[in-house]
Amino acid sequence: MSDFRNLLPRFESGDALAASRLLSVVENGGPDAEAVLDALFSRTGRARRIAITGPGGAGKSSLVDALTPRFRAAGRTVGIVAEDPTSPFSGGAVLGDRVRMVRAAGDAGVFIRSLASRGSESGLSPLACELADVLDAFGRDVVMLETMGVGQVETRIRFAADTVVVVLTPEAGDEVQSLKAGLLEVADIFVVNKADRAGADALVADLTALAGMRSRTDGWSPPVLATTANRDDGIAAVESALVAHETHLAGNGRREARRRQGLAARVRALVDDALRRAWWQDPTALTRFDAMVERVSRGAVSPQRAARDIAAALRVAAPTSQ
Amino acid sequence: MSDFRNLLPRFESGDALAASRLLSVVENGGPDAEAVLDALFSRTGRARRIAITGPGGAGKSSLVDALTPRFRAAGRTVGIVAEDPTSPFSGGAVLGDRVRMVRAAGDAGVFIRSLASRGSESGLSPLACELADVLDAFGRDVVMLETMGVGQVETRIRFAADTVVVVLTPEAGDEVQSLKAGLLEVADIFVVNKADRAGADALVADLTALAGMRSRTDGWSPPVLATTANRDDGIAAVESALVAHETHLAGNGRREARRRQGLAARVRALVDDALRRAWWQDPTALTRFDAMVERVSRGAVSPQRAARDIAAALRVAAPTSQ
Repeated sequence: MSDFRNLLPRFESGDALAASRLLSVVENGGPDAEAVLDALFSRTGRARRIAITGPGGAGKSSLVDALTPRFRAAGRTVGIVAEDPTSPFSGGAVLGDRVRMVRAAGDAGVFIRSLASRGSESGLSPLACELADVLDAFGRDVVMLETMGVGQVETRIRFAADTVVVVLTPEAGDEVQSLKAGLLEVADIFVVNKADRAGADALVADLTALAGMRSRTDGWSPPVLATTANRDDGIAAVESALVAHETHLAGNGRREARRRQGLAARVRALVDDALRRAWWQDPTALTRFDAMVERVSRGAVSPQRAARDIAAALRVAAPTSQ
Repeated sequence: MSDFRNLLPRFESGDALAASRLLSVVENGGPDAEAVLDALFSRTGRARRIAITGPGGAGKSSLVDALTPRFRAAGRTVGIVAEDPTSPFSGGAVLGDRVRMVRAAGDAGVFIRSLASRGSESGLSPLACELADVLDAFGRDVVMLETMGVGQVETRIRFAADTVVVVLTPEAGDEVQSLKAGLLEVADIFVVNKADRAGADALVADLTALAGMRSRTDGWSPPVLATTANRDDGIAAVESALVAHETHLAGNGRREARRRQGLAARVRALVDDALRRAWWQDPTALTRFDAMVERVSRGAVSPQRAARDIAAALRVAAPTSQ
């Protein structure tokens, strides 16, 4: 505990090594992680958060890599959290498709943290958001979250960032059809990457039709952009779209409203986790569970009724005066 | 309530219309669904349950379609639950890749129920398991569950079936690398479908190496089979592998142990859901939540600490004597 407390002044003065060590403390979890997040949370909220999501192999890392020098050229520091088992940042590349992060290497204005997804669930983890919090508190102007979103789209990601960029490839056309509603719900910007491949135009047309089909409650119409990120083609248009969305968010308190919703969603998810943990550590709850599973195995009661009977033991204590 | 009670005798005598209506009652959820599942649960446990999982477009439906007449030829009745937004069974086919379910159409020995996945999460839903329960109680000898498993593999599916068949295509090779551990954990049989495409041999070799790498605690070594399901190529080998796994399960009480684990996992997941529902309907819990989100938005407390404080109100009531 005292160890990380010593790091805080160095962190606050912009020491990258201290930042790196605090990221590790958070990554390792437990009470120290929570204490770090508590200490840093009031310093967050300044960074522009951009989520880059899409299936493995869509070229999310290449896009992040192509955007980074552009933010740097505009004088903005960059933090990157990559959570994708297939990401080159996490050492997961298998087909030699490594991005040229040499561009960013050695630049103190770029801070990269990658974590291989550890759970069995796809999509954004609470940990990725927490690492983004640390980079935000560290004073990065832009924090990019690279995360794998496949199959059913993770709607959670909508609240993890100011802007969500969904990256797809022409090959994904088939899947896109089944994900229409979910995609439209999360994407602020669509990027069709590897646009030199067959089917790119059709996918751009499909997504454009999709984006025009339904007006969003926030009044933003997601642009559909074609890129070949590893050749830097089309990246200027993505940069412009990011600026346009930033301007859009600045109006009518939209950014603040979105962040408040995002924080509420984060707290809600963390409460769900904490409840589950507390419940399954409670000896009374476990005794009830074991007895019920025994009855279910005998065919005496259905799993549904068993679960209802077990959960009926839930009580919520009234708040103590504070 | 009385309505579905009238259906039960007809259901028990094998009336397909009654089965269809009870499936709808379960699908619609609520107290009636639970009452149906309670009434039927003691009749379940006889069917052989086979899960067919894999990414959208892998050919899961084609495999189900190719296996069905073989089960029928062996004198076994078949029930199919398809939960996959891209499945032709659920009307989700977009590229004209419709399977020829004409083979099964009109055969009273085949009962198909499809549901488009409604949640935003991928993978098997509790509802799919419940529909499988109904088909099991209806006396189907074999119940196949077709479900989309993409990205990170859904380990839950392991406990939803006696045998899990993972269907992949040569194009999935890249993704497979990142999913090794998860795949090995769930797959009892690997099928490389569309084996006439480039890369099929390499994927078969990769999976074979993977399957041989780690010995499973259950002593089963997952075979890797190449098929072209829509041409019926390689299906006999899949059928043989299914028989071999059935024989394997028959030894040492393995099938019963797996089912007990599966039921425990199902009850656990249902308890999690029920807890969440009960918690977020509790006025005290909601008041605590709103107050905390307000403090988080002001930067006064981190989301982590807020969640911990809120969840600290959890109590578990001691069981009443019964």
